[in-house]
Amino acid sequence: MNRLSVNQQTIRQWSLAELVAGCSDAGVANVGLWREPVTEHGLARTARLVRSAGLSVTSLCRGGFFTAAEPAARTAALADNRAAIEQAAELGAPVLVLVSGGLADRPHDLAGARLRVAEALAELGPYAGERGVRLAVEPLHPMFCSDRCVVNTLRQARELVAPLPAEQVGVVVDTYHCWWDPQVYEEIALLGAAGRIALFQAADWVTPLPEGVLVGRGQLGDGHVPLRELLAATDAAGYRGPVEVEIFSEDLWRRPGGEVLRELLGRYRDHLLERPERDGTG
Amino acid sequence: MNRLSVNQQTIRQWSLAELVAGCSDAGVANVGLWREPVTEHGLARTARLVRSAGLSVTSLCRGGFFTAAEPAARTAALADNRAAIEQAAELGAPVLVLVSGGLADRPHDLAGARLRVAEALAELGPYAGERGVRLAVEPLHPMFCSDRCVVNTLRQARELVAPLPAEQVGVVVDTYHCWWDPQVYEEIALLGAAGRIALFQAADWVTPLPEGVLVGRGQLGDGHVPLRELLAATDAAGYRGPVEVEIFSEDLWRRPGGEVLRELLGRYRDHLLERPERDGTG
Repeated sequence: MNRLSVNQQTIRQWSLAELVAGCSDAGVANVGLWREPVTEHGLARTARLVRSAGLSVTSLCRGGFFTAAEPAARTAALADNRAAIEQAAELGAPVLVLVSGGLADRPHDLAGARLRVAEALAELGPYAGERGVRLAVEPLHPMFCSDRCVVNTLRQARELVAPLPAEQVGVVVDTYHCWWDPQVYEEIALLGAAGRIALFQAADWVTPLPEGVLVGRGQLGDGHVPLRELLAATDAAGYRGPVEVEIFSEDLWRRPGGEVLRELLGRYRDHLLERPERDGTG
Repeated sequence: MNRLSVNQQTIRQWSLAELVAGCSDAGVANVGLWREPVTEHGLARTARLVRSAGLSVTSLCRGGFFTAAEPAARTAALADNRAAIEQAAELGAPVLVLVSGGLADRPHDLAGARLRVAEALAELGPYAGERGVRLAVEPLHPMFCSDRCVVNTLRQARELVAPLPAEQVGVVVDTYHCWWDPQVYEEIALLGAAGRIALFQAADWVTPLPEGVLVGRGQLGDGHVPLRELLAATDAAGYRGPVEVEIFSEDLWRRPGGEVLRELLGRYRDHLLERPERDGTG
């Protein structure tokens, strides 16, 4: 269980203090945090709280949104990402997750938006590296291409980060976003061989998708994603980092946080641990 | 305008007779038909109606749904597809569009489902070829992978059909499904070089997506898809076939059919014709 990290969004009905207490009580060693609740709780105060509970912060979510072409918006985005890098460093989070941004102020300029992401990464990589934080580009499912993220496959992310030092910029393998990809296993192997897998995140794919498609992810085991196979492939590619469970789900958010965490622990054991206890081989 | 084909689903509020009359009156030379309304109107009667109006049928939608593993379901699917091929032949439709099917009766077996699609194509290809009908595999957007279609990119479709004769099995380039793909232009060129582009379909991508994500496609020009660029690439790859406008949209279906057709003609001219009249170069 020591690889499991609970991403804060999965139990967003909990305050930061509740999350830290709940995870500690349940024996969870790691959490993934989001900037807004961290800022609300206070950055230094959050860092102290997490440390005193003995928890590790596996990632900070999220930077990115690099695609605006308008100069002032672009400058603001880069400044905001530098601030996010500093926040990650203060929290001791080794990884800052980046969601690249959608088509923003040029609604037909997909190629240009993708180029602006590459330029922003080149500009921010050294700044992150100097602070001990690794930028992690997260390809989002293609259904988010226009409004949220123009980086949509592992191959695209791999090619995007290739010109930059691997210790500065990696890639997130999120099962929800990439499970459908006919090249997913090939790309995980290539990313691993290049030392580019910065983080593994898990959620399941369930239908029907809700309006807006953002908050309808499935609890582990409820959907179609071959969770164990994808984690095994990622491990086989050399990944040794945390398994962060990040589920955006209105259904989970309506329930008591403690109940969601207990369910999550059971599902993690059943659907992600290498040797499931239910098989009697553990 | 002689390449334009109006897919029946775009104006589904019209009966088949209304569609044929409306297109004839508006000078539209081609229609794409769907099996259910054709069966309802009567197959032979539809064929006569369309022919007497001087219209061409550019495609019949749809066959497919090949992914069930259970033998009886599989046999039934193949029989249904043979029937669809015969219907296409009687209508004089050169192309039968195939939507491959989702995860069906094995919810975690994506690789197996994809294999079963390949097997079905191999079985049906000669049957189609003998009847002068070409099977056209349509990659659907990855958001449909679990529930509707396990073929999700042009590359995947290209590799899927490669073992089969090009005159029997081709691929549909539908702008709605493939516009986001970082390899879209490369793949259109490869498909064209291999003589595999069976049909070009157009719709625009708009957000937010509605619940279930099926019926929220955009009228040409309302969204983010570079329609003209994708058609130009398809033409440059050697495609000389129709431009079929297929828009699943609750918004369009709520409006009078004649109004939707008039709007469509204007949008087609503005967003798909090579030399837009508004530029003064026509």
